[in-house]
Amino acid sequence: MASPPTPLRAPEHQVAGHQAAEGRLGPLVDGAGLFFKPLQGDGRGDDEVSFYTLLSSLPSSPPLLLLLPLLPRHAPPPRLRRLRPPPSPRPRGPRRRASEDYIRKCFEKDQRTTSASLGFRISGIQIRDGSGAWKPDRGEIRRFSPRDVRIALRRFVSSDPRSDPDRALAAAVYGGADGVLAKLGELKRWFEEQTLFHFNSVSVLVVYERDEGATLGKGKVKVKLVDFAHVVEGKGVIDHNFLGGLCSLIRFISDVLTGLDENCI
Amino acid sequence: MASPPTPLRAPEHQVAGHQAAEGRLGPLVDGAGLFFKPLQGDGRGDDEVSFYTLLSSLPSSPPLLLLLPLLPRHAPPPRLRRLRPPPSPRPRGPRRRASEDYIRKCFEKDQRTTSASLGFRISGIQIRDGSGAWKPDRGEIRRFSPRDVRIALRRFVSSDPRSDPDRALAAAVYGGADGVLAKLGELKRWFEEQTLFHFNSVSVLVVYERDEGATLGKGKVKVKLVDFAHVVEGKGVIDHNFLGGLCSLIRFISDVLTGLDENCI
Repeated sequence: MASPPTPLRAPEHQVAGHQAAEGRLGPLVDGAGLFFKPLQGDGRGDDEVSFYTLLSSLPSSPPLLLLLPLLPRHAPPPRLRRLRPPPSPRPRGPRRRASEDYIRKCFEKDQRTTSASLGFRISGIQIRDGSGAWKPDRGEIRRFSPRDVRIALRRFVSSDPRSDPDRALAAAVYGGADGVLAKLGELKRWFEEQTLFHFNSVSVLVVYERDEGATLGKGKVKVKLVDFAHVVEGKGVIDHNFLGGLCSLIRFISDVLTGLDENCI
Repeated sequence: MASPPTPLRAPEHQVAGHQAAEGRLGPLVDGAGLFFKPLQGDGRGDDEVSFYTLLSSLPSSPPLLLLLPLLPRHAPPPRLRRLRPPPSPRPRGPRRRASEDYIRKCFEKDQRTTSASLGFRISGIQIRDGSGAWKPDRGEIRRFSPRDVRIALRRFVSSDPRSDPDRALAAAVYGGADGVLAKLGELKRWFEEQTLFHFNSVSVLVVYERDEGATLGKGKVKVKLVDFAHVVEGKGVIDHNFLGGLCSLIRFISDVLTGLDENCI
Protein backbone atom coordinates (compact mmCIF):
# COMPACT_ATOMS: atom_id res chain seq x y z
CA MET A 1 0.00 0.00 0.00
CA ALA A 2 1.57 3.28 -1.12
CA SER A 3 1.85 6.05 1.45
CA PRO A 4 0.22 9.32 0.52
CA PRO A 5 2.67 11.97 -0.61
CA THR A 6 3.51 14.54 2.05
CA PRO A 7 3.23 17.21 3.21
CA LEU A 8 -0.52 17.65 2.86
CA ARG A 9 -1.82 21.19 3.15
CA ALA A 10 -5.12 23.07 2.89
CA PRO A 11 -5.92 24.21 -0.66
CA GLU A 12 -6.13 27.92 -1.37
CA HIS A 13 -9.85 27.81 -2.20
CA GLN A 14 -12.84 26.28 -0.53
CA VAL A 15 -14.33 23.16 -2.09
CA ALA A 16 -18.15 22.91 -2.18
CA GLY A 17 -18.33 25.20 0.84
CA HIS A 18 -15.74 23.25 2.82
CA GLN A 19 -12.38 24.73 3.74
CA ALA A 20 -9.70 23.34 5.98
CA ALA A 21 -8.29 25.74 8.55
CA GLU A 22 -6.30 25.65 11.77
CA GLY A 23 -8.10 23.08 13.90
CA ARG A 24 -10.78 22.32 11.29
CA LEU A 25 -10.62 19.25 9.07
CA GLY A 26 -11.25 19.94 5.42
CA PRO A 27 -10.05 19.07 1.93
CA LEU A 28 -6.28 18.78 1.52
CA VAL A 29 -3.91 18.84 -1.45
CA ASP A 30 -0.42 17.44 -1.83
CA GLY A 31 0.82 20.06 -4.28
CA ALA A 32 1.41 17.37 -6.91
CA GLY A 33 -2.13 17.26 -8.29
CA LEU A 34 -3.81 15.00 -5.76
CA PHE A 35 -6.79 16.19 -3.78
CA PHE A 36 -7.75 14.55 -0.48
CA LYS A 37 -11.33 14.62 0.69
CA PRO A 38 -11.85 13.75 4.36
CA LEU A 39 -14.39 10.99 4.95
CA GLN A 40 -17.58 12.51 6.31
CA GLY A 41 -19.31 11.21 9.43
CA ASP A 42 -22.61 9.30 9.74
CA GLY A 43 -21.39 6.67 7.30
CA ARG A 44 -21.43 9.18 4.44
CA GLY A 45 -17.69 8.93 3.87
CA ASP A 46 -17.84 5.15 3.89
CA ASP A 47 -20.74 5.24 1.45
CA GLU A 48 -18.78 7.42 -0.92
CA VAL A 49 -15.77 5.11 -0.77
CA SER A 50 -18.09 2.13 -1.33
CA PHE A 51 -19.50 3.79 -4.41
CA TYR A 52 -16.03 4.32 -5.89
CA THR A 53 -14.99 0.80 -4.90
CA LEU A 54 -18.05 -0.71 -6.53
CA LEU A 55 -17.46 1.32 -9.68
CA SER A 56 -13.90 0.01 -9.93
CA SER A 57 -15.08 -3.57 -9.48
CA LEU A 58 -17.93 -3.54 -12.02
CA PRO A 59 -17.25 -5.11 -15.40
CA SER A 60 -16.99 -2.52 -18.16
CA SER A 61 -20.35 -1.84 -19.73
CA PRO A 62 -21.58 0.87 -22.10
CA PRO A 63 -23.33 2.79 -19.29
CA LEU A 64 -20.23 2.69 -17.12
CA LEU A 65 -17.88 3.70 -19.90
CA LEU A 66 -20.05 6.74 -20.52
CA LEU A 67 -20.08 7.61 -16.83
CA LEU A 68 -16.37 7.39 -16.07
CA PRO A 69 -15.23 10.56 -17.88
CA LEU A 70 -17.88 12.43 -15.90
CA LEU A 71 -16.46 11.36 -12.55
CA PRO A 72 -13.37 12.70 -10.83
CA ARG A 73 -10.51 10.22 -11.16
CA HIS A 74 -10.13 8.61 -7.80
CA ALA A 75 -7.31 7.10 -5.85
CA PRO A 76 -7.87 3.61 -4.41
CA PRO A 77 -9.72 3.61 -1.08
CA PRO A 78 -6.72 2.66 1.11
CA ARG A 79 -5.05 5.92 0.20
CA LEU A 80 -8.22 7.90 0.97
CA ARG A 81 -8.66 6.06 4.23
CA ARG A 82 -5.28 7.10 5.53
CA LEU A 83 -6.77 10.39 6.71
CA ARG A 84 -8.50 8.71 9.64
CA PRO A 85 -8.55 5.31 11.34
CA PRO A 86 -10.01 2.54 9.18
CA PRO A 87 -13.81 2.36 9.53
CA SER A 88 -15.53 -0.76 10.73
CA PRO A 89 -16.25 -3.15 7.86
CA ARG A 90 -19.64 -2.93 6.18
CA PRO A 91 -20.95 -4.45 2.97
CA ARG A 92 -19.54 -2.99 -0.24
CA GLY A 93 -21.70 -1.05 -2.66
CA PRO A 94 -24.21 1.72 -2.14
CA ARG A 95 -27.10 1.43 0.28
CA ARG A 96 -30.23 -0.30 -0.95
CA ARG A 97 -32.41 2.74 -0.39
CA ALA A 98 -32.41 6.19 1.16
CA SER A 99 -33.77 6.34 4.71
CA GLU A 100 -37.18 7.90 5.32
CA ASP A 101 -35.54 10.53 7.53
CA TYR A 102 -33.17 11.50 4.76
CA ILE A 103 -35.98 11.71 2.17
CA ARG A 104 -38.06 13.89 4.51
CA LYS A 105 -35.11 16.16 5.26
CA CYS A 106 -34.40 16.60 1.54
CA PHE A 107 -38.07 17.36 0.87
CA GLU A 108 -38.08 20.10 3.52
CA LYS A 109 -34.83 21.58 2.21
CA ASP A 110 -36.10 21.47 -1.37
CA GLN A 111 -39.09 23.59 -0.36
CA ARG A 112 -36.78 26.27 1.05
CA THR A 113 -34.57 26.47 -2.07
CA THR A 114 -35.19 26.46 -5.82
CA SER A 115 -34.98 22.64 -5.89
CA ALA A 116 -38.75 22.29 -5.63
CA SER A 117 -39.60 24.91 -8.24
CA LEU A 118 -36.72 24.45 -10.69
CA GLY A 119 -35.72 20.84 -10.08
CA PHE A 120 -32.20 21.97 -9.14
CA ARG A 121 -30.43 24.53 -7.02
CA ILE A 122 -27.08 26.25 -7.24
CA SER A 123 -25.08 25.13 -4.21
CA GLY A 124 -21.99 27.22 -4.86
CA ILE A 125 -20.57 29.57 -7.47
CA GLN A 126 -17.44 31.61 -7.82
CA ILE A 127 -15.63 33.50 -10.52
CA ARG A 128 -12.08 34.65 -9.96
CA ASP A 129 -10.22 37.04 -12.20
CA GLY A 130 -7.30 39.45 -11.96
CA SER A 131 -9.28 41.96 -9.96
CA GLY A 132 -10.76 39.60 -7.39
CA ALA A 133 -13.61 37.17 -7.12
CA TRP A 134 -17.39 37.04 -7.21
CA LYS A 135 -18.38 34.49 -4.65
CA PRO A 136 -21.79 34.85 -3.03
CA ASP A 137 -21.81 33.23 0.42
CA ARG A 138 -23.74 30.04 1.21
CA GLY A 139 -26.57 31.87 2.96
CA GLU A 140 -27.12 34.14 -0.03
CA ILE A 141 -27.03 31.21 -2.45
CA ARG A 142 -29.53 29.25 -0.36
CA ARG A 143 -31.96 32.16 -0.68
CA PHE A 144 -31.56 32.33 -4.50
CA SER A 145 -34.89 32.83 -6.29
CA PRO A 146 -35.44 31.41 -9.79
CA ARG A 147 -34.55 34.88 -11.11
CA ASP A 148 -31.29 34.88 -9.10
CA VAL A 149 -30.42 31.49 -10.61
CA ARG A 150 -30.90 32.88 -14.12
CA ILE A 151 -28.74 35.91 -13.33
CA ALA A 152 -26.02 33.74 -11.74
CA LEU A 153 -25.91 31.52 -14.85
CA ARG A 154 -25.48 34.68 -16.92
CA ARG A 155 -22.81 36.19 -14.71
CA PHE A 156 -20.90 32.91 -14.81
CA VAL A 157 -20.25 33.52 -18.52
CA SER A 158 -19.93 37.32 -18.56
CA SER A 159 -16.74 39.28 -19.01
CA ASP A 160 -17.05 41.06 -15.68
CA PRO A 161 -19.13 39.17 -13.10
CA ARG A 162 -19.38 42.30 -10.95
CA SER A 163 -21.20 44.45 -13.52
CA ASP A 164 -24.18 43.90 -15.84
CA PRO A 165 -23.94 40.40 -17.31
CA ASP A 166 -23.00 40.62 -21.00
CA ARG A 167 -22.86 36.85 -21.63
CA ALA A 168 -19.62 37.44 -23.60
CA LEU A 169 -18.45 33.85 -23.01
CA ALA A 170 -21.83 32.13 -23.28
CA ALA A 171 -21.24 30.69 -26.75
CA ALA A 172 -17.74 29.48 -25.88
CA VAL A 173 -18.56 28.00 -22.46
CA TYR A 174 -22.18 26.83 -22.78
CA GLY A 175 -22.29 26.23 -26.56
CA GLY A 176 -20.16 24.26 -29.02
CA ALA A 177 -19.21 20.62 -29.35
CA ASP A 178 -17.15 20.61 -26.14
CA GLY A 179 -19.28 23.09 -24.23
CA VAL A 180 -21.35 22.64 -21.11
CA LEU A 181 -24.60 21.95 -22.96
CA ALA A 182 -23.02 19.22 -25.08
CA LYS A 183 -21.61 17.55 -21.98
CA LEU A 184 -24.89 17.87 -20.08
CA GLY A 185 -26.70 16.40 -23.10
CA GLU A 186 -24.39 13.39 -22.93
CA LEU A 187 -25.12 13.09 -19.22
CA LYS A 188 -28.87 13.30 -19.92
CA ARG A 189 -28.75 10.48 -22.45
CA TRP A 190 -26.87 8.42 -19.90
CA PHE A 191 -29.48 9.10 -17.23
CA GLU A 192 -32.25 8.07 -19.61
CA GLU A 193 -30.67 4.63 -19.80
CA GLN A 194 -28.79 3.78 -16.64
CA THR A 195 -30.57 1.98 -13.81
CA LEU A 196 -27.51 1.12 -11.71
CA PHE A 197 -27.57 4.06 -9.29
CA HIS A 198 -29.77 6.82 -7.95
CA PHE A 199 -27.59 9.87 -7.43
CA ASN A 200 -29.25 11.49 -4.41
CA SER A 201 -27.61 14.81 -3.45
CA VAL A 202 -24.99 14.47 -6.18
CA SER A 203 -23.85 17.79 -7.69
CA VAL A 204 -22.89 18.77 -11.19
CA LEU A 205 -19.59 20.66 -11.08
CA VAL A 206 -18.99 23.04 -14.00
CA VAL A 207 -15.54 24.61 -14.34
CA TYR A 208 -13.81 26.64 -17.01
CA GLU A 209 -10.67 28.72 -17.26
CA ARG A 210 -10.37 31.89 -19.21
CA ASP A 211 -7.45 33.94 -20.41
CA GLU A 212 -6.78 37.55 -19.56
CA GLY A 213 -8.79 38.97 -22.45
CA ALA A 214 -11.91 37.19 -21.24
CA THR A 215 -11.51 34.56 -23.92
CA LEU A 216 -11.81 30.89 -23.15
CA GLY A 217 -8.68 28.84 -22.58
CA LYS A 218 -8.55 25.86 -24.94
CA GLY A 219 -10.34 22.69 -23.86
CA LYS A 220 -10.95 24.11 -20.46
CA VAL A 221 -14.66 23.45 -19.97
CA LYS A 222 -15.18 20.60 -17.52
CA VAL A 223 -18.39 18.99 -16.31
CA LYS A 224 -18.18 16.41 -13.53
CA LEU A 225 -20.51 14.71 -11.10
CA VAL A 226 -19.30 15.06 -7.52
CA ASP A 227 -20.26 13.94 -4.00
CA PHE A 228 -21.52 10.38 -3.83
CA ALA A 229 -22.27 10.03 -0.14
CA HIS A 230 -26.01 9.46 -0.74
CA VAL A 231 -25.94 7.30 -3.87
CA VAL A 232 -28.26 4.29 -3.59
CA GLU A 233 -28.91 1.27 -5.80
CA GLY A 234 -31.02 1.94 -8.89
CA LYS A 235 -32.74 -1.46 -8.77
CA GLY A 236 -33.69 -1.40 -12.44
CA VAL A 237 -35.30 2.06 -12.29
CA ILE A 238 -33.82 5.17 -13.92
CA ASP A 239 -32.97 8.09 -11.64
CA HIS A 240 -36.07 10.06 -12.69
CA ASN A 241 -35.46 12.61 -9.98
CA PHE A 242 -31.95 13.56 -11.09
CA LEU A 243 -32.96 13.36 -14.75
CA GLY A 244 -35.84 15.83 -14.32
CA GLY A 245 -33.61 18.36 -12.60
CA LEU A 246 -30.88 17.87 -15.18
CA CYS A 247 -33.34 18.58 -18.02
CA SER A 248 -34.40 21.75 -16.23
CA LEU A 249 -30.78 22.87 -15.80
CA ILE A 250 -30.17 22.19 -19.51
CA ARG A 251 -33.15 24.36 -20.36
CA PHE A 252 -31.95 27.21 -18.11
CA ILE A 253 -28.48 27.16 -19.67
CA SER A 254 -29.97 26.98 -23.18
CA ASP A 255 -32.03 30.05 -22.30
CA VAL A 256 -28.87 31.98 -21.40
CA LEU A 257 -27.29 30.92 -24.68
CA THR A 258 -30.26 31.95 -26.79
CA GLY A 259 -31.14 35.04 -24.76
CA LEU A 260 -34.57 33.58 -23.99
CA ASP A 261 -33.90 34.11 -20.29
CA GLU A 262 -34.48 37.83 -20.82
CA ASN A 263 -38.22 37.11 -20.80
CA CYS A 264 -37.90 35.75 -17.28
CA ILE A 265 -35.53 38.27 -15.65
CA MET B 1 -75.54 28.68 -26.02
CA ALA B 2 -76.45 25.17 -27.15
CA SER B 3 -78.26 22.92 -24.70
CA PRO B 4 -76.57 19.65 -23.95
CA PRO B 5 -78.08 16.68 -25.75
CA THR B 6 -80.39 14.58 -23.59
CA PRO B 7 -80.97 12.21 -22.02
CA LEU B 8 -77.69 11.93 -20.13
CA ARG B 9 -76.96 8.61 -18.51
CA ALA B 10 -74.20 6.92 -16.52
CA PRO B 11 -71.63 5.16 -18.73
CA GLU B 12 -71.29 1.41 -18.48
CA HIS B 13 -67.72 1.58 -17.11
CA GLN B 14 -66.08 3.60 -14.39
CA VAL B 15 -63.82 6.44 -15.44
CA ALA B 16 -60.59 6.89 -13.45
CA GLY B 17 -62.23 5.26 -10.47
CA HIS B 18 -65.38 7.38 -10.65
CA GLN B 19 -68.73 5.90 -11.48
CA ALA B 20 -72.16 7.49 -11.41
CA ALA B 21 -74.89 5.54 -9.63
CA GLU B 22 -78.30 6.12 -8.14
CA GLY B 23 -77.85 9.16 -5.93
CA ARG B 24 -74.15 9.57 -6.69
CA LEU B 25 -72.87 12.14 -9.18
CA GLY B 26 -70.37 10.82 -11.67
CA PRO B 27 -69.36 10.95 -15.32
CA LEU B 28 -72.24 10.93 -17.80
CA VAL B 29 -72.56 10.17 -21.50
CA ASP B 30 -75.17 11.25 -24.03
CA GLY B 31 -74.98 8.14 -26.17
CA ALA B 32 -73.85 10.22 -29.17
CA GLY B 33 -70.13 10.30 -28.33
CA LEU B 34 -70.05 13.10 -25.78
CA PHE B 35 -68.73 12.49 -22.29
CA PHE B 36 -69.68 14.79 -19.41
CA LYS B 37 -67.36 15.15 -16.45
CA PRO B 38 -68.93 16.73 -13.36
CA LEU B 39 -67.01 19.70 -12.00
CA GLN B 40 -65.20 18.65 -8.83
CA GLY B 41 -65.40 20.62 -5.60
CA ASP B 42 -62.73 22.75 -3.88
CA GLY B 43 -62.25 24.80 -7.04
CA ARG B 44 -60.77 21.81 -8.85
CA GLY B 45 -63.53 21.72 -11.43
CA ASP B 46 -63.21 25.44 -12.05
CA ASP B 47 -59.45 25.08 -12.41
CA GLU B 48 -59.89 22.36 -14.99
CA VAL B 49 -62.35 24.48 -16.97
CA SER B 50 -59.94 27.43 -16.71
CA PHE B 51 -57.16 25.30 -18.12
CA TYR B 52 -59.25 24.31 -21.16
CA THR B 53 -60.47 27.87 -21.59
CA LEU B 54 -56.92 29.24 -21.51
CA LEU B 55 -55.81 26.60 -24.01
CA SER B 56 -58.55 27.63 -26.42
CA SER B 57 -57.60 31.29 -26.08
CA LEU B 58 -53.83 30.95 -26.56
CA PRO B 59 -52.45 31.80 -29.99
CA SER B 60 -51.29 28.73 -31.88
CA SER B 61 -47.66 27.97 -31.18
CA PRO B 62 -45.49 24.93 -31.90
CA PRO B 63 -45.68 23.68 -28.30
CA LEU B 64 -49.45 24.03 -28.26
CA LEU B 65 -49.95 22.37 -31.62
CA LEU B 66 -47.98 19.42 -30.35
CA LEU B 67 -50.03 19.25 -27.17
CA LEU B 68 -53.51 19.40 -28.64
CA PRO B 69 -53.64 15.89 -30.13
CA LEU B 70 -52.63 14.57 -26.72
CA LEU B 71 -55.61 16.16 -24.98
CA PRO B 72 -59.20 15.01 -25.03
CA ARG B 73 -61.24 17.21 -27.37
CA HIS B 74 -63.34 19.39 -25.13
CA ALA B 75 -66.68 21.09 -25.40
CA PRO B 76 -66.82 24.80 -24.55
CA PRO B 77 -67.14 25.52 -20.84
CA PRO B 78 -70.79 26.71 -20.89
CA ARG B 79 -71.86 23.27 -21.96
CA LEU B 80 -69.79 21.66 -19.25
CA ARG B 81 -71.11 24.09 -16.69
CA ARG B 82 -74.70 23.11 -17.28
CA LEU B 83 -74.25 20.21 -14.90
CA ARG B 84 -74.34 22.49 -11.88
CA PRO B 85 -75.05 26.14 -11.08
CA PRO B 86 -72.49 28.58 -12.51
CA PRO B 87 -69.53 29.00 -10.15
CA SER B 88 -68.53 32.37 -8.75
CA PRO B 89 -66.24 34.26 -11.11
CA ARG B 90 -62.49 33.88 -10.63
CA PRO B 91 -59.56 34.86 -12.81
CA ARG B 92 -59.06 32.76 -15.93
CA GLY B 93 -56.04 30.53 -16.38
CA PRO B 94 -54.40 28.05 -14.06
CA ARG B 95 -53.27 28.94 -10.56
CA ARG B 96 -49.89 30.59 -10.19
CA ARG B 97 -48.57 27.86 -7.94
CA ALA B 98 -49.63 24.77 -6.02
CA SER B 99 -50.48 25.37 -2.35
CA GLU B 100 -48.07 24.16 0.31
CA ASP B 101 -50.80 21.90 1.69
CA TYR B 102 -51.29 20.29 -1.68
CA ILE B 103 -47.54 19.75 -2.18
CA ARG B 104 -47.22 18.18 1.27
CA LYS B 105 -50.23 15.92 0.67
CA CYS B 106 -48.79 14.75 -2.65
CA PHE B 107 -45.41 14.09 -1.03
CA GLU B 108 -47.03 11.92 1.65
CA LYS B 109 -49.09 10.03 -0.92
CA ASP B 110 -46.05 9.54 -3.16
CA GLN B 111 -44.24 7.83 -0.28
CA ARG B 112 -47.09 5.33 0.10
CA THR B 113 -47.21 4.42 -3.61
CA THR B 114 -44.63 3.74 -6.31
CA SER B 115 -44.53 7.46 -7.22
CA ALA B 116 -41.52 8.08 -4.99
CA SER B 117 -39.53 5.06 -6.13
CA LEU B 118 -40.54 4.89 -9.80
CA GLY B 119 -41.51 8.49 -10.54
CA PHE B 120 -45.01 7.34 -11.51
CA ARG B 121 -47.81 5.13 -10.28
CA ILE B 122 -50.57 3.21 -11.99
CA SER B 123 -53.84 4.77 -10.84
CA GLY B 124 -56.17 2.41 -12.68
CA ILE B 125 -56.04 -0.47 -15.14
CA GLN B 126 -58.55 -2.72 -16.77
CA ILE B 127 -58.67 -5.18 -19.60
CA ARG B 128 -61.98 -6.42 -20.90
CA ASP B 129 -62.44 -9.28 -23.29
CA GLY B 130 -65.11 -11.77 -24.27
CA SER B 131 -64.73 -13.73 -21.07
CA GLY B 132 -64.77 -10.85 -18.61
CA ALA B 133 -62.44 -8.25 -17.27
CA TRP B 134 -59.24 -7.93 -15.28
CA LYS B 135 -59.68 -4.87 -13.13
CA PRO B 136 -57.79 -4.72 -9.84
CA ASP B 137 -59.57 -2.48 -7.36
CA ARG B 138 -58.23 0.89 -6.27
CA GLY B 139 -56.95 -0.38 -2.92
CA GLU B 140 -54.98 -3.15 -4.62
CA ILE B 141 -53.54 -0.74 -7.18
CA ARG B 142 -52.48 1.72 -4.48
CA ARG B 143 -50.46 -1.06 -2.85
CA PHE B 144 -48.69 -1.97 -6.14
CA SER B 145 -44.97 -2.62 -5.66
CA PRO B 146 -42.50 -1.85 -8.46
CA ARG B 147 -42.71 -5.54 -9.36
CA ASP B 148 -46.53 -5.35 -9.53
CA VAL B 149 -46.23 -2.39 -11.88
CA ARG B 150 -43.98 -4.38 -14.20
CA ILE B 151 -46.38 -7.31 -14.18
CA ALA B 152 -49.38 -5.05 -14.82
CA LEU B 153 -47.64 -3.47 -17.81
CA ARG B 154 -47.02 -7.00 -19.14
CA ARG B 155 -50.55 -8.19 -18.52
CA PHE B 156 -51.88 -5.12 -20.28
CA VAL B 157 -50.41 -6.45 -23.56
CA SER B 158 -50.89 -10.20 -23.02
CA SER B 159 -53.40 -12.39 -24.79
CA ASP B 160 -55.07 -13.49 -21.58
CA PRO B 161 -54.65 -11.05 -18.69
CA ARG B 162 -55.81 -13.67 -16.22
CA SER B 163 -53.02 -16.17 -16.90
CA ASP B 164 -49.23 -15.89 -17.22
CA PRO B 165 -48.42 -12.76 -19.20
CA ASP B 166 -47.18 -13.73 -22.68
CA ARG B 167 -46.74 -10.15 -23.98
CA ALA B 168 -48.36 -11.28 -27.26
CA LEU B 169 -49.45 -7.73 -28.10
CA ALA B 170 -46.39 -5.89 -26.78
CA ALA B 171 -44.88 -5.19 -30.20
CA ALA B 172 -48.19 -4.02 -31.66
CA VAL B 173 -49.32 -1.88 -28.71
CA TYR B 174 -46.09 -0.59 -27.19
CA GLY B 175 -43.87 -0.70 -30.30
CA GLY B 176 -44.16 0.62 -33.86
CA ALA B 177 -44.56 4.07 -35.34
CA ASP B 178 -48.05 4.57 -33.88
CA GLY B 179 -47.48 2.63 -30.68
CA VAL B 180 -47.45 3.78 -27.10
CA LEU B 181 -43.68 4.30 -26.94
CA ALA B 182 -43.67 6.48 -30.04
CA LYS B 183 -46.46 8.63 -28.62
CA LEU B 184 -44.81 8.86 -25.21
CA GLY B 185 -41.55 9.85 -26.93
CA GLU B 186 -43.40 12.69 -28.63
CA LEU B 187 -44.81 13.72 -25.29
CA LYS B 188 -41.33 13.60 -23.75
CA ARG B 189 -39.87 15.88 -26.40
CA TRP B 190 -42.73 18.27 -25.76
CA PHE B 191 -42.06 18.26 -22.01
CA GLU B 192 -38.38 18.98 -22.62
CA GLU B 193 -39.39 22.21 -24.30
CA GLN B 194 -42.64 23.56 -22.93
CA THR B 195 -42.63 25.96 -20.00
CA LEU B 196 -46.29 27.01 -20.14
CA PHE B 197 -47.75 24.60 -17.60
CA HIS B 198 -46.82 22.28 -14.77
CA PHE B 199 -49.09 19.26 -14.96
CA ASN B 200 -49.47 18.33 -11.30
CA SER B 201 -51.57 15.17 -10.79
CA VAL B 202 -52.21 14.83 -14.53
CA SER B 203 -52.50 11.23 -15.74
CA VAL B 204 -51.43 9.55 -18.94
CA LEU B 205 -54.33 7.52 -20.31
CA VAL B 206 -53.36 4.60 -22.57
CA VAL B 207 -56.12 2.80 -24.44
CA TYR B 208 -56.21 0.21 -27.18
CA GLU B 209 -58.80 -2.07 -28.71
CA ARG B 210 -58.15 -5.56 -29.86
CA ASP B 211 -60.00 -7.97 -32.05
CA GLU B 212 -61.25 -11.37 -31.02
CA GLY B 213 -58.10 -13.21 -32.04
CA ALA B 214 -56.03 -11.05 -29.66
CA THR B 215 -54.75 -9.01 -32.57
CA LEU B 216 -54.69 -5.27 -32.46
CA GLY B 217 -57.50 -3.30 -34.09
CA LYS B 218 -56.11 -0.85 -36.64
CA GLY B 219 -55.06 2.57 -35.39
CA LYS B 220 -56.53 1.85 -32.03
CA VAL B 221 -53.68 2.83 -29.71
CA LYS B 222 -54.44 6.12 -27.99
CA VAL B 223 -52.36 8.11 -25.53
CA LYS B 224 -53.92 11.15 -23.87
CA LEU B 225 -53.22 13.41 -20.94
CA VAL B 226 -56.23 13.67 -18.63
CA ASP B 227 -57.31 15.49 -15.46
CA PHE B 228 -56.16 19.08 -15.30
CA ALA B 229 -57.55 20.17 -11.94
CA HIS B 230 -54.09 20.84 -10.49
CA VAL B 231 -52.30 22.36 -13.46
CA VAL B 232 -50.33 25.50 -12.54
CA GLU B 233 -48.40 28.07 -14.54
CA GLY B 234 -44.98 26.96 -15.74
CA LYS B 235 -43.41 30.41 -15.37
CA GLY B 236 -40.60 29.71 -17.81
CA VAL B 237 -39.54 26.44 -16.15
CA ILE B 238 -40.04 22.99 -17.69
CA ASP B 239 -42.19 20.51 -15.76
CA HIS B 240 -39.14 18.57 -14.53
CA ASN B 241 -41.29 16.54 -12.17
CA PHE B 242 -43.66 15.20 -14.83
CA LEU B 243 -40.77 14.75 -17.28
CA GLY B 244 -38.76 12.60 -14.87
CA GLY B 245 -41.73 10.32 -14.22
CA LEU B 246 -42.54 10.13 -17.92
CA CYS B 247 -38.96 9.05 -18.72
CA SER B 248 -39.24 6.33 -16.09
CA LEU B 249 -42.56 5.11 -17.52
CA ILE B 250 -40.98 5.03 -21.00
CA ARG B 251 -38.16 2.92 -19.64
CA PHE B 252 -40.56 0.50 -17.94
CA ILE B 253 -42.57 0.05 -21.12
CA SER B 254 -39.39 -0.37 -23.18
CA ASP B 255 -38.34 -3.08 -20.76
CA VAL B 256 -41.58 -4.99 -21.41
CA LEU B 257 -41.02 -4.67 -25.14
CA THR B 258 -37.43 -5.90 -25.02
CA GLY B 259 -38.03 -8.48 -22.31
CA LEU B 260 -35.50 -6.74 -20.05
CA ASP B 261 -38.15 -6.58 -17.33
CA GLU B 262 -37.59 -10.29 -16.74
CA ASN B 263 -34.46 -9.38 -14.79
CA CYS B 264 -36.59 -7.40 -12.37
CA ILE B 265 -39.61 -9.67 -11.86
